[in-house]
Amino acid sequence: MMQYPPAEVGMAVADVDTPALLVDLDAFERNLKTMADAVAASGVKLRAHSKTHKCPVVARRQMALGAVGACCQKVSEAEAMVYGGVTDVLVSNEIVGRAKLRRLCALASQARIAVCADDSGNVDDLNAAAGEAGITLSVLVEIDVGANRCGVQPGDEALALAQKIDRAPNLRFGGLQSYHGRAQHIRDFDERRAAIESAVVMTRDTVGLLARKGLSCDIVGGAGTGTYQFEAASGVYNELQAGSYAFMDADYRLNLKQGGGFIDEFENALFVYATVMSKPGETHAVVDAGLKAYSVDSGLPVLRDFPELNVAGASDEHGKIMLTPAFNDSNKSLHVGDKVFLIPGHVDPTVNLYDWYVCYRGDRVEAVWPITARGALQ
Amino acid sequence: MMQYPPAEVGMAVADVDTPALLVDLDAFERNLKTMADAVAASGVKLRAHSKTHKCPVVARRQMALGAVGACCQKVSEAEAMVYGGVTDVLVSNEIVGRAKLRRLCALASQARIAVCADDSGNVDDLNAAAGEAGITLSVLVEIDVGANRCGVQPGDEALALAQKIDRAPNLRFGGLQSYHGRAQHIRDFDERRAAIESAVVMTRDTVGLLARKGLSCDIVGGAGTGTYQFEAASGVYNELQAGSYAFMDADYRLNLKQGGGFIDEFENALFVYATVMSKPGETHAVVDAGLKAYSVDSGLPVLRDFPELNVAGASDEHGKIMLTPAFNDSNKSLHVGDKVFLIPGHVDPTVNLYDWYVCYRGDRVEAVWPITARGALQ
Repeated sequence: MMQYPPAEVGMAVADVDTPALLVDLDAFERNLKTMADAVAASGVKLRAHSKTHKCPVVARRQMALGAVGACCQKVSEAEAMVYGGVTDVLVSNEIVGRAKLRRLCALASQARIAVCADDSGNVDDLNAAAGEAGITLSVLVEIDVGANRCGVQPGDEALALAQKIDRAPNLRFGGLQSYHGRAQHIRDFDERRAAIESAVVMTRDTVGLLARKGLSCDIVGGAGTGTYQFEAASGVYNELQAGSYAFMDADYRLNLKQGGGFIDEFENALFVYATVMSKPGETHAVVDAGLKAYSVDSGLPVLRDFPELNVAGASDEHGKIMLTPAFNDSNKSLHVGDKVFLIPGHVDPTVNLYDWYVCYRGDRVEAVWPITARGALQ
Repeated sequence: MMQYPPAEVGMAVADVDTPALLVDLDAFERNLKTMADAVAASGVKLRAHSKTHKCPVVARRQMALGAVGACCQKVSEAEAMVYGGVTDVLVSNEIVGRAKLRRLCALASQARIAVCADDSGNVDDLNAAAGEAGITLSVLVEIDVGANRCGVQPGDEALALAQKIDRAPNLRFGGLQSYHGRAQHIRDFDERRAAIESAVVMTRDTVGLLARKGLSCDIVGGAGTGTYQFEAASGVYNELQAGSYAFMDADYRLNLKQGGGFIDEFENALFVYATVMSKPGETHAVVDAGLKAYSVDSGLPVLRDFPELNVAGASDEHGKIMLTPAFNDSNKSLHVGDKVFLIPGHVDPTVNLYDWYVCYRGDRVEAVWPITARGALQ
């Protein structure tokens, strides 16, 4: 059941009920502009990933600044985007199973839709579903450029699958999906760049091989917030699929930039707002946000305003903030009822826990946006 | 937005769309009966925790077998239970903040409600909110019996807070909340028992101290799936708050029973159903269920039907199953389109990711239950 929103437009941020997912609109808008400017200067296109934000309001903001459309990972996510006004969606993932293929093809008669494939049998199924729906579906070949997850091998394997798509009566070969997910979180700048340089070589060789066989790639897509500048400069990729840059998280901010120091072109714009619900002594305080309020797969959240303190543990509904003698002796304090801003470790699965973004500017709530694709798993 | 259900009543389990949260009704019903029988034999009461299942249908099944009501961790969770027919709810947690206290007190005029406290200022707020609502609210004192999270110290601290509650005009002292969360997952049987023996001593002493001061404890509550038999036999606890036993998970099944071997009185009854969406070679297969389909805070999921294989990693929408030469050479296989049953590492935050339980018996879907308190964070 959708939960009712923890805030009303116009109220003070301090009055927002907790846990709530807060968006700092100024920081968010600066992030969107920074990426839009970087992409515009590069000559490639942005197709921002909606798996991060799951909200067509955000996708349309990105498109208003120049993004050509959205990426999705799921058919149900694509539905949420299309029904929210996004007219061009790439499902940057394999879609398997009859129910999902029917929904995908139905959507393709309502918006510009493309999907990825890495399996010959799946291409048969895509062709059959497109035929039943009476549409022509655009299909990209996903190649494995180092993530070692999905995707056929670059080169001959990719060519064979592209030719199969090209021959299928109800499909159209749409290009290459060439995303190096593992590279996004390589901390060292040079190592991260080297991983993408390797992906670029494989992608360029495959694009060339396909071209020699008469197959052109409308889309050569990939990249994320950790590496987008490398793909943008590659001369091969023409669409960037970054998503996290809009909000950022504690994990991405640990990537290092060239010459050292943490990356800083994007700001933390998304926070889990939590209340101190217990402070049984001087050793720790407990907030009302735990494993159901943020994902810990990439580490525990970080306190925005008290970087000297650590969240030491989380259980289902509790987060435990360790206090220090220095903190207790300072003029700072955390009391029962105080509210804190937590920077989640990993933004995508954290957003997926909430029904609403509480968007604020300064100290006032300016908008409350529904996270329409929250829980869109199929 | 609530997502539409991935199954229809009567369909074959094999046709359920994925990812889906499946409940094996036979195993689930055996788990409920096993716990009900154990509790009935002990003479204490069961107040099963709804933070696990978040579904009033499940709570009412537990009450039909003798449970006196439900526990909740959040006011919004309590609302979901009361509006779903549960008439007796203990919020086994501290509730802080004006908006929540108003909701809590409004609920207390619609059902039997109690709440916990561990802070003097919070008791003042509870009293004021109850006064505004024109009700008398039952408040338990939470004591820290080893979890080192919330709760005042047993003994004098607990007495002082209980007396404050007792004196407050709009509150009624309701007893002690004495839950040792950390003990639930201590693997070794003797160590686990010792942790609860220590909690029992502290609880018994505090109950005695309160009695000598004229304060009786209607509820002495605590215990979970890992330790319930110890609290049941303690002669002090009178309500058990186990929740996970209904479904179990991969983590709880690693607890050891007396004399060795994994605990086995409860069965895995809850699964994440997933589809192999990519199998790019012989090294691994990728399923369509990742960090948004199961929580990994207590470890990656386990394959029910292929215990010899490991889920080696999860990203937002992908789970990576490592294949072995022995598996590839056997007559077993995993192909694109195959569906698998994953046992989640931790049931509570996994359930919280879904809108629907797809409940099956044998190979047919028998019911689709809404997870009403999914996302009930406030």
